[in-house]
Amino acid sequence: MKPKPFALSCPIPIDRYPTVTLAHGGGGKLMHQLIESMFVTAFKNEILEIRHDGAILQLQGKRIAFTTDSYVVRPLFFPGGDIGSLAIHGTVNDLAMCGARPLYLSAAFIIEEGLPMETLWRIVQSMKIAADAAGVQIVTGDTKVVDKGKGDGIFINIAGVGIIEHDLKISPQGIQPGDVILLNGDIGRHSISIMAEREGLTFETTIESDSAPLAGLVQQLLRGGIHVHCMRDLTRGGLASALVEIVEASDLHTEINENLIPVLEQVQGACEMLGLDPLYVANEGRFVAFVPADQVDLALRIMQSHPLGSAACSIGIVSESSPKLVTMKTRIGSNRIIDMLSGEQLPRIC
Amino acid sequence: MKPKPFALSCPIPIDRYPTVTLAHGGGGKLMHQLIESMFVTAFKNEILEIRHDGAILQLQGKRIAFTTDSYVVRPLFFPGGDIGSLAIHGTVNDLAMCGARPLYLSAAFIIEEGLPMETLWRIVQSMKIAADAAGVQIVTGDTKVVDKGKGDGIFINIAGVGIIEHDLKISPQGIQPGDVILLNGDIGRHSISIMAEREGLTFETTIESDSAPLAGLVQQLLRGGIHVHCMRDLTRGGLASALVEIVEASDLHTEINENLIPVLEQVQGACEMLGLDPLYVANEGRFVAFVPADQVDLALRIMQSHPLGSAACSIGIVSESSPKLVTMKTRIGSNRIIDMLSGEQLPRIC
Repeated sequence: MKPKPFALSCPIPIDRYPTVTLAHGGGGKLMHQLIESMFVTAFKNEILEIRHDGAILQLQGKRIAFTTDSYVVRPLFFPGGDIGSLAIHGTVNDLAMCGARPLYLSAAFIIEEGLPMETLWRIVQSMKIAADAAGVQIVTGDTKVVDKGKGDGIFINIAGVGIIEHDLKISPQGIQPGDVILLNGDIGRHSISIMAEREGLTFETTIESDSAPLAGLVQQLLRGGIHVHCMRDLTRGGLASALVEIVEASDLHTEINENLIPVLEQVQGACEMLGLDPLYVANEGRFVAFVPADQVDLALRIMQSHPLGSAACSIGIVSESSPKLVTMKTRIGSNRIIDMLSGEQLPRIC
Repeated sequence: MKPKPFALSCPIPIDRYPTVTLAHGGGGKLMHQLIESMFVTAFKNEILEIRHDGAILQLQGKRIAFTTDSYVVRPLFFPGGDIGSLAIHGTVNDLAMCGARPLYLSAAFIIEEGLPMETLWRIVQSMKIAADAAGVQIVTGDTKVVDKGKGDGIFINIAGVGIIEHDLKISPQGIQPGDVILLNGDIGRHSISIMAEREGLTFETTIESDSAPLAGLVQQLLRGGIHVHCMRDLTRGGLASALVEIVEASDLHTEINENLIPVLEQVQGACEMLGLDPLYVANEGRFVAFVPADQVDLALRIMQSHPLGSAACSIGIVSESSPKLVTMKTRIGSNRIIDMLSGEQLPRIC
């Protein structure tokens, strides 16, 4: 009864990509190629096909969201957070983006031999504080230790389970012509806070990560009766990649306006200095919501009444007009096509 | 509304354990101290308290099992399996030990830059084959890549969700005086297959890992009406540590008989050569079930009718007599107290 191995050859052209590179984890084109060509091809099933931030499971009539993320951020501590709080926020946010109320998390540690015990304790405490603030419980876990030189301090995986308590279908396929794209605040701070810490850059005032749990804000939108069509948090690959992913999974054109996208002056300056584009850098407390035009005012009021949405704004619209692309009206009035990056912009940002 | 940091100091005595060591991941005393003193203390909640192979969640009247495990086995390929099949089996087995029918898995990869693309593809295929054989779907995932020298080829985390379709409470607290301890086959093969591959040892015939998905066998026991009181798979720390963990969580004495515990002659020989005790080495397709005395014959018949339980046997009993210990009647007729190991026996075995 031994199952036979596949007859399939490697779906990634190995003459071109003989090995896995940092860019394969960067949130851009190569990562998407790896996921689509290898993982989705091999693991093919109806749930995986939805290409969401998490899976939506039907369990005896209940809709449950299930998601996983590993965190390999370097350095472990940065202004506004650390790997522990980031890990809780990241997974809570993936559940929130599915429209679920996050309930339970697992915590699995891969620790490099030699990690100071006090460092581990600081991280564990930070996880607990972040979990309490997000209203979730850590209910199961795992601990592995690898030899010195075979890890990098600590890697954390957090999987999460949440419950969907409404009838909306929130997914990239749900966006419609006329939808307005809302954003909950300024972009780019998480990446810049990490880069500054990593590269030893100093600014006039410290730029703190935007890392935060978005589930409360999302629950307010849903309970407020907003018919959210799609949501996505702006992690690896940033705002640009999130919009491209959504548009590729739908069949519609999306236009954003650069003038409407808030970026702190300091973040803009740091990005220019580091050769980065704020549209492509990762955030950990920012998301876009696609909402029907007639609910925009109400949705913005709800978002702005929450501490994590006080600077919420609309940044663009969905239209039927082809081509199936994300375009941006730039500050100087031209139109720019927004695509995913092919390479790696910022490794180990989450 | 910023949450305050804990006032607590590090619960592990840092003058004694200033850093995390390999033994903290080895399944013995140090790992249990870390889990109990640090993780359980910090994350304290009713579900985590149960100290099971996974968490049992109440979701709107349904009982759901939720578990996580990271896999860091070295080498990635070994006789009888690889990190991919092992990862699927390990998490499926944790769900099975909760008495759940495994349904959905997540797959999160931490890949070291430079891993050959074909190696990744071999592992992904192996995961798919193992998932199909276990009747589970991989429904969500994550991919991270870390710089060369900051990982070790590939680490995989698999979290899992299963459903509990019976009314039994299967947990260490459920064992009762008179219960008989059943084991589904010979022990030690997984560890020895890994060690042989790692150390370049050769035997007359290749020792293959026992890595296998136990959910089907467990479901047969439950559907057959066996009132299983507790189950545990014999992973890190082996049979000895599993029994000590269960006894510590209950309040009863457990006695096993060395003559009744099957160990292949070759495995016994390899253990002696390597200075290992088969009672303490990890298995990935072996478990113990505590069943009421009047159901032993039926339970053994059910187990023996399944390919993964053909050599099932009873190895000991639970008694009320103090002390609250695991003891073993040895081959030479003496009584030996079975305790957890303090140090590390075999690193990176799963």
